[in-house]
Amino acid sequence: MLVYGKNVAEELLKKNYKVKKIYLQDNFSDKLINSLLENTKIPIILKTKLQMNDLVNGLHQGIILDIDDYKCIELDEILKSNPNFIVILDHLEDPHNLGAIIRTSEAASVDAIIIPKDRQVGINSTVMKTSAGALINMKICSVTNLVSTINKLKENGFWIIGTDLENSVDYKNIDYSGKIALVIGNEGKGMSKLVKKQCDFIANIPIYGTVNSLNASVASGIMIYEVVRNRK
Amino acid sequence: MLVYGKNVAEELLKKNYKVKKIYLQDNFSDKLINSLLENTKIPIILKTKLQMNDLVNGLHQGIILDIDDYKCIELDEILKSNPNFIVILDHLEDPHNLGAIIRTSEAASVDAIIIPKDRQVGINSTVMKTSAGALINMKICSVTNLVSTINKLKENGFWIIGTDLENSVDYKNIDYSGKIALVIGNEGKGMSKLVKKQCDFIANIPIYGTVNSLNASVASGIMIYEVVRNRK
Repeated sequence: MLVYGKNVAEELLKKNYKVKKIYLQDNFSDKLINSLLENTKIPIILKTKLQMNDLVNGLHQGIILDIDDYKCIELDEILKSNPNFIVILDHLEDPHNLGAIIRTSEAASVDAIIIPKDRQVGINSTVMKTSAGALINMKICSVTNLVSTINKLKENGFWIIGTDLENSVDYKNIDYSGKIALVIGNEGKGMSKLVKKQCDFIANIPIYGTVNSLNASVASGIMIYEVVRNRK
Repeated sequence: MLVYGKNVAEELLKKNYKVKKIYLQDNFSDKLINSLLENTKIPIILKTKLQMNDLVNGLHQGIILDIDDYKCIELDEILKSNPNFIVILDHLEDPHNLGAIIRTSEAASVDAIIIPKDRQVGINSTVMKTSAGALINMKICSVTNLVSTINKLKENGFWIIGTDLENSVDYKNIDYSGKIALVIGNEGKGMSKLVKKQCDFIANIPIYGTVNSLNASVASGIMIYEVVRNRK
């Protein structure tokens, strides 16, 4: 997978993350990244701006890194580490939302993120970029069936908190002190019916204006920090 | 300005917003929008998918609307309406962030948003799209000098709350009950020095992981709903 941008490069190099090779624009200059590159054994290949533009679609800022594809972790593996805060994404479509949610989750010490295998945006370079590199520190589990996964989490003592405007309670009036799995719905359609049915509580973030909903990554941020507020 | 997408179309048509003309893909079909279009006098021009793609860069979903450019409102005009919650954006670069912040602000009944005239992303179709149409309900004021604007707000009884990780207090420990102007900094550089100096309080959203910061629209969402929590 080719990932790019100064933020991502800084994060990967600082963490000594396994990078196969680095494509660097011939006039690239960044104090911190240059000093990180001085001490690395990663092969560096110089390219012109045009050649760099040919490699990736997004804004690479002069640095592109070739890394192994992201490897998801099995649910059992995650459960073994005794997690108490999990975020479940119910078929998100937008890679920017996925990236931003990974970034917020990492910032808030969420233990793992669960995504469905199908009809869900994959983990690509846009996700890495919008996560500001946080992706490499986040455990992500890709599952075939969200409902049976939720049931397994329940058996393991988790409370399942969904998010929806209908048949729900104000997000501030929920007790988040136990083991929490927070479900974020699809950008347009929200949570699927079967997933909603499995929720112990459904939270809403009150809307005082005329829009129907908040952006999915913004709503996730508000919910994630509300859970954190009840714990830290 | 050409704006597009079903969300935006629905919002504009429902509000009877002044639309000059509508470009519709020949096979367009959406129950709600079709019913809204039945009763409109707006000229509708049918186009093929290829012709539609030529009109705009983004995902138009078969509907593009031609509307007047967004008109900003003067600060004095805003102050006359006796606002008590204003969001100030200190040189944001990403139109997706601007759009998402407008959407959250409209949802939370923020009275107005202030942006600087220079080195700040403008109000374009991407902003309209990511705001989910909320842009048409939001008062936005574009100013030459943020510092003198902040001073004027102070004279009008506003408390200025900045956001930064350094020399700041936990965002949960601030009293937001008065008239509040919340300053959101640039995605990479944060607030500018001169703006920071004018803040009465600087808030931070605690980071428990390894990322340096949250996405600007996520941080704005958490802060805006924290202000709302103290008031509603």
